[in-house]
Amino acid sequence: MSASAENNVVKENGWEEGTLLQKVMELVKQENLASGMESSKRVIEFQHPKDLEKILQLGLTREGLSFAQVEELLEKVVKYSVKTQHPHFYNQQYGGIDEVALTGAWLTDALNTNQHTYEVAPVFILMERFIIQHMISLFGWPEGDGIFSGGGSMSNMYGMLLARYRLYPDVKRTGIFGRKPLVIFTSDQSNYSFAKGASVMGIGMDNVISVATDSCGRMLPQALREEVAKARARGGEPFFVNASAGTTVLGSFDPFEDIADVCQEEGLWMHIDACWGGSVILSKTHRHNLNGIQRADSVSWNPHKMIGTTLQCSPFFVRHKGLLHECNSASATYLFQQDKFYDVSYDTGDKSIQCGRKVDAFKLYFLLSTKGMDLVEKKIDAAFSASDYLNEQLGVRPGFRRVIEKPQCTNTCFWYIPPSLRDQPETPEWWEKLSKVPSIIKARMVQEGTMMIGYQPLASKNLVNFFRLVNTSTPMTTNADMDFVLDEIERLGKDL
Amino acid sequence: MSASAENNVVKENGWEEGTLLQKVMELVKQENLASGMESSKRVIEFQHPKDLEKILQLGLTREGLSFAQVEELLEKVVKYSVKTQHPHFYNQQYGGIDEVALTGAWLTDALNTNQHTYEVAPVFILMERFIIQHMISLFGWPEGDGIFSGGGSMSNMYGMLLARYRLYPDVKRTGIFGRKPLVIFTSDQSNYSFAKGASVMGIGMDNVISVATDSCGRMLPQALREEVAKARARGGEPFFVNASAGTTVLGSFDPFEDIADVCQEEGLWMHIDACWGGSVILSKTHRHNLNGIQRADSVSWNPHKMIGTTLQCSPFFVRHKGLLHECNSASATYLFQQDKFYDVSYDTGDKSIQCGRKVDAFKLYFLLSTKGMDLVEKKIDAAFSASDYLNEQLGVRPGFRRVIEKPQCTNTCFWYIPPSLRDQPETPEWWEKLSKVPSIIKARMVQEGTMMIGYQPLASKNLVNFFRLVNTSTPMTTNADMDFVLDEIERLGKDL
Ligand SMILES: Cc1ncc(COP(=O)(O)O)c(C=O)c1O
Ligand SMILES: Cc1ncc(COP(=O)(O)O)c(C=O)c1O
Repeated sequence: MSASAENNVVKENGWEEGTLLQKVMELVKQENLASGMESSKRVIEFQHPKDLEKILQLGLTREGLSFAQVEELLEKVVKYSVKTQHPHFYNQQYGGIDEVALTGAWLTDALNTNQHTYEVAPVFILMERFIIQHMISLFGWPEGDGIFSGGGSMSNMYGMLLARYRLYPDVKRTGIFGRKPLVIFTSDQSNYSFAKGASVMGIGMDNVISVATDSCGRMLPQALREEVAKARARGGEPFFVNASAGTTVLGSFDPFEDIADVCQEEGLWMHIDACWGGSVILSKTHRHNLNGIQRADSVSWNPHKMIGTTLQCSPFFVRHKGLLHECNSASATYLFQQDKFYDVSYDTGDKSIQCGRKVDAFKLYFLLSTKGMDLVEKKIDAAFSASDYLNEQLGVRPGFRRVIEKPQCTNTCFWYIPPSLRDQPETPEWWEKLSKVPSIIKARMVQEGTMMIGYQPLASKNLVNFFRLVNTSTPMTTNADMDFVLDEIERLGKDL
Repeated sequence: MSASAENNVVKENGWEEGTLLQKVMELVKQENLASGMESSKRVIEFQHPKDLEKILQLGLTREGLSFAQVEELLEKVVKYSVKTQHPHFYNQQYGGIDEVALTGAWLTDALNTNQHTYEVAPVFILMERFIIQHMISLFGWPEGDGIFSGGGSMSNMYGMLLARYRLYPDVKRTGIFGRKPLVIFTSDQSNYSFAKGASVMGIGMDNVISVATDSCGRMLPQALREEVAKARARGGEPFFVNASAGTTVLGSFDPFEDIADVCQEEGLWMHIDACWGGSVILSKTHRHNLNGIQRADSVSWNPHKMIGTTLQCSPFFVRHKGLLHECNSASATYLFQQDKFYDVSYDTGDKSIQCGRKVDAFKLYFLLSTKGMDLVEKKIDAAFSASDYLNEQLGVRPGFRRVIEKPQCTNTCFWYIPPSLRDQPETPEWWEKLSKVPSIIKARMVQEGTMMIGYQPLASKNLVNFFRLVNTSTPMTTNADMDFVLDEIERLGKDL
């Protein structure tokens, strides 16, 4: 036994090695965090911040905690955390995890390494390459490249960075000072990460042009064409168009072929933000929504959103080989030595704008390979079919109203009109009253812990607060779950 | 039992719930990944990329894997991954994990949520606030703010973003076109993330000025002053100075007080990149290295580098309250509704340039609170003391030569001069020969799997390839480990 092994955790922590890991295992099993959580359990045990502070009693001591204290802390963490894996958690674009995904994440943690060189992450580098090549061929690209990034927002920024670099490679060295303002186009329904990215990149949020959408939230190609012309007329330099594959609120897919035509005519980079809807590429039934993706220059995808790979899991793809490296490399000699004894083209870290990079590829590879593509597909289709059922019900149940007639993705947006507001003229005051309903019902559902659904207004469409229910593929949502949601909203809102 | 619970993982995956998690547990225990790995085991089972591809046989099928196949895959992943927790892994600025850190990471994965709102991450939001406030008071700041970011590179970019925003708030909206070139100053020993960040931000790598350092790799304040004057004379706009607390290769701490004086005189933002060396603030013996940190405007810290919190764990701190939010907010109404029923000042997501954000605060809080600050301190001190011992040995053992006399952090940089090169005139040819030694010895150590140590040249100091051995606090390194390293290098290099 080596000298260092003597300094092991048994002595350090005062309990036997593995005990704490075992405790987490038990908590996960006991609460069914990794699968099959019963919907009769609470989604959330809500406490206001000040009260939760009192419960948690956060603090650091010189001597640390006893095992009993550690157990108590872990139990509290579990108790007061939101059960995102609960069948009735529809609050965000993520949710359940299953054992396979969790296993992948756990092993990644245990093997604690960095996805920057083959030297320290040989297995994971190969898996990242494999997944990227696999997806690229699904997109119908003859070649391409990619990288797992720190989130969808960062992936979207990668798209903008590459587009800018392709246009002006010297920006990397000399910056954009003295250039004409670079202009970005994205629909008025798209994610706010383009605004954040533009701010970071020195382009500025005002140079992100909101392109009008149709009543279903899809970008109008003609409006795009006009905005590009206007920007040029103002002296700006259009360079980047984002098309969304599954917008955050309405779940709309932009018309990619038409947008690709505009981009081609105007010489603009076409990015597809498929963070949310990209997973449909794995479904024969729903992949038509992505038609045109073969013409995109770059794509962002967040499998952690729809197919339960656990946060974070955000591959970014680009159709142009070599560009990621050219745009982002800084050639740090302490990491990317060129005199290594293996093929250094496997060292991918210098393609990244990060240095250290968490391994996120393994859990995705592990999920897809273990479950098999049939089951992955079936689960995606189930999320769509539950959403279809819900949408149908919204059309027939009194008191509910759809925001759009036929959603394209698994977000379902709707108002609940409480009894006191039914059958009345829909004056501005009426809408004002209706706008208060979601936040009250939301507060009640959270207090009772029966379910969680998000709500928001949609200023771009002049719409007051409505619910957005998100179905993901894990756990599989049933029609009965959807009935439960509507019943529960009625129950919580009937006195309003 | 709810309808959705019927669709549970038992049916889905074809084996009993929890079996796979149990398998990971067993692998972790069997291989001692979470603590006390014996140094007689191999650090790495090296295979060239093409061979490893053959071994792994990556592929996706329609039907998925049987349990036996899954087990085989997991075993291969473990076998061919680098054991960064091995006592003789000194290759990077991270390494061992212990059970406590891993437990925190595992529970974070299992509770799969997003650190953007109190609504979905109540416990973790409070822990993030707590840790940030705790560190801010250790820095000696009267107030401040912070956020866990996607890595040290991103934290460093946060510093640059805030500095730019403070100077020109309208950059957020209108970009930096038409401005004088903004100029960044950082030492010639600092991390390459400043160059990458400058490229991303539209500032350009040429506007990152490398400030000269002394023979130990510490920034020369007078050189900084001169570079600032030169940049102004060239028509540039200096705005940001980075001072390093623990440089990547040499481990140097810049003279913060002197740099703070220059920043004050010149009206520049002072950032401290304490990604690597920041952990010394937890040690009474070594925190003097950070003297002057109370005057910094912002600080980056990567506890995953020295104290084993598992990747990634990257808090960023800023002394100016409110600035993070002002600079980065985009007010997405679907996440940051202002009519929520709880105090929305706890929703921290809009301070971030990300949207979704992995929870990284819990494992740090859990590690510090569970182990206690005494033990955390003792382990940091042990890393320093092993490094001291190694440095001493380098001075007395024939064939070894230090790169700097007295390292300030736990990186130890040295050459090994093989027998055939000893006692010879040190001509350019001699250095050329010496420069080949580390890569050969590295290839041999990796092939044998006995240890891993990095090497690199240092162009800024005109130094050819040398070893950089990094000690972290987990597992605790002993003097015997250091003797092993020197013996092993001698053994592997004696014929050179
Ligand atoms: C001094 C220093 N700063 C910043 C970084 C970048 O941190 P990260 O790898 O988390 O991006 C590193 C990484 O090694 C570093 O050594
Ligand atoms: C359509 C879309 N794109 C991008 C993002 C941003 O992804 P991330 O949260 O990983 O940054 C989101 C997040 O909700 C999204 O819905």
